[in-house]
Amino acid sequence: MSIFGLFRKQRSAPMARERLQILLAHERASVGSDLVSVLREEILAVIAKHVQVDRDKVQVKMDRDKDVSMLEIDVEIPRDATLKAA
Amino acid sequence: MSIFGLFRKQRSAPMARERLQILLAHERASVGSDLVSVLREEILAVIAKHVQVDRDKVQVKMDRDKDVSMLEIDVEIPRDATLKAA
Repeated sequence: MSIFGLFRKQRSAPMARERLQILLAHERASVGSDLVSVLREEILAVIAKHVQVDRDKVQVKMDRDKDVSMLEIDVEIPRDATLKAA
Repeated sequence: MSIFGLFRKQRSAPMARERLQILLAHERASVGSDLVSVLREEILAVIAKHVQVDRDKVQVKMDRDKDVSMLEIDVEIPRDATLKAA
């Protein structure tokens, strides 16, 4: 099953809310480079630029092992939140 | 299996390359709002700001059905590509 399928299966039951989920994985060749923490704040800023979200409706999870750094951002968007003009 | 597990399983065999994969899913309540195309260019710009990548090493896939818009960005980072100072 492709990753897309997993997103669909996890769909939040009541569709009254919109939901934005971002998964970022960085397969590192060297231990030093860690893009995930560098990109995290900027991706959050890009989202906030376009959608009105409450900070407490944004969940951020980071995970890191020997080779892979992972970032998961889960944003619940209130139904009446309009897209901000870019 | 969590989505994180899927990322690990798909690890590219030779670790000579670094790889950055971003999946974005927008569960829409209304048909109109389509965050994915709005966020796509800005997320690509955030990545390019921090990592030297060749445009032809960046694959972007978009997928959309009744409720969910999906974006997958797959970036192959040359081993010697240094992180740009933010």
